[in-house]
Amino acid sequence: MIPCPISDSLSPFDCLPAANGAVIDGLDYFIVENTRSARRFLAKCHISRKIDDLEFVELNEHTVAGAAVEAMIRPLLAGRSAGVISEAGVPGVADPGALVVEVCHRHGIKVVPLVGPSSILLAMMASGLNGQSFAFNGYLPIKPAERAKALKTLERRAKVEHQSQLFIEAPYRNVKLAEQILEVCAADTRLVIACDITSPEEYISMKSVAEWRRVSLPDIAKRPTIFIIG
Amino acid sequence: MIPCPISDSLSPFDCLPAANGAVIDGLDYFIVENTRSARRFLAKCHISRKIDDLEFVELNEHTVAGAAVEAMIRPLLAGRSAGVISEAGVPGVADPGALVVEVCHRHGIKVVPLVGPSSILLAMMASGLNGQSFAFNGYLPIKPAERAKALKTLERRAKVEHQSQLFIEAPYRNVKLAEQILEVCAADTRLVIACDITSPEEYISMKSVAEWRRVSLPDIAKRPTIFIIG
Repeated sequence: MIPCPISDSLSPFDCLPAANGAVIDGLDYFIVENTRSARRFLAKCHISRKIDDLEFVELNEHTVAGAAVEAMIRPLLAGRSAGVISEAGVPGVADPGALVVEVCHRHGIKVVPLVGPSSILLAMMASGLNGQSFAFNGYLPIKPAERAKALKTLERRAKVEHQSQLFIEAPYRNVKLAEQILEVCAADTRLVIACDITSPEEYISMKSVAEWRRVSLPDIAKRPTIFIIG
Repeated sequence: MIPCPISDSLSPFDCLPAANGAVIDGLDYFIVENTRSARRFLAKCHISRKIDDLEFVELNEHTVAGAAVEAMIRPLLAGRSAGVISEAGVPGVADPGALVVEVCHRHGIKVVPLVGPSSILLAMMASGLNGQSFAFNGYLPIKPAERAKALKTLERRAKVEHQSQLFIEAPYRNVKLAEQILEVCAADTRLVIACDITSPEEYISMKSVAEWRRVSLPDIAKRPTIFIIG
């Protein structure tokens, strides 16, 4: 499980341990969310093999569990190793990578996670909200009424269980989501907006909903953002 | 927010980006969970300052929110920077570090999370369980009856909401917890046992409860372990 940067502004080893390079260098087979971005990442890692000599197979949101994923791990049953690479950040979290990991465990193939950037974890570390109990909920429903209901449910869980609640949105809908949070949530609910993590434009701020209502929202349009309520 | 290794067998930069070193090198004030382990970590980082010239203040499970934490950030209000270091892994997650981050946000002090190893995130990456929705629940209750109830609640949430449920135990109680999971949970519930992550003894395996009942449990006594059900 090979993490890659989450910000284009960073070279791989600005945010990855150098030791990951040696692991990557030993591989010639990659199961990737997006071939083009994986090739670009590997080129930036200055691996010793030629990129064109490497084999890539795509595992993305269109991949259906079953025969296609079983086929991906066939080389592993014969003793070869594979690197799993997500489009950004760590594979297996908030991406479809878990599909191939599940099949590996079923066949007794060893799975090794390498250290790298996760916007979920980094946002949580810098949030100031309870890090002893937290949940990542992925995307909320798109329809405003359903989304309002989901926000109220997460807010209730955050209060009753003291569990910080993380979620994301397609970046072009970030502003609408932030506005709805300020509309729907209680004045004393705390909201963290964590934006462009690990980039030079990184912005992480925690305020109560009442305080957010008083200030203008940061410019989060089209910027990758993690929202946390607690 | 400065991560440190989670396994004693690793040098810091085996599992941390080299760029973290430059950040650490620029600091002379540290808010730490444990002074002795923080000093040992900084010594292994080969920082340019003398360890004895650095200032340390402890923030641990005995620290009460309020005046003590406000005092820790007083130097920051005067323009100094501080590094926050946990006993192992990333600060602010599964440790008391969030207390000081919360106060920083309240005073408009910038909080920057650095990349490093989190056994929670690494276990999740390598679990094969749903990584699009997952929750870290910290410690379960100690009393067997209450713990059985908590396990049933987490199992229900894992099934109904498709949310992977992570939890931990004091290492010397790991075996008791694993045995109780096999007793209490349904045969088709999947259990991941992730042990000694990032160390040479790393062990990560996912099986259904039915399968775990057929094999003998791995030796997890006194080894740091993440449990996930899904």
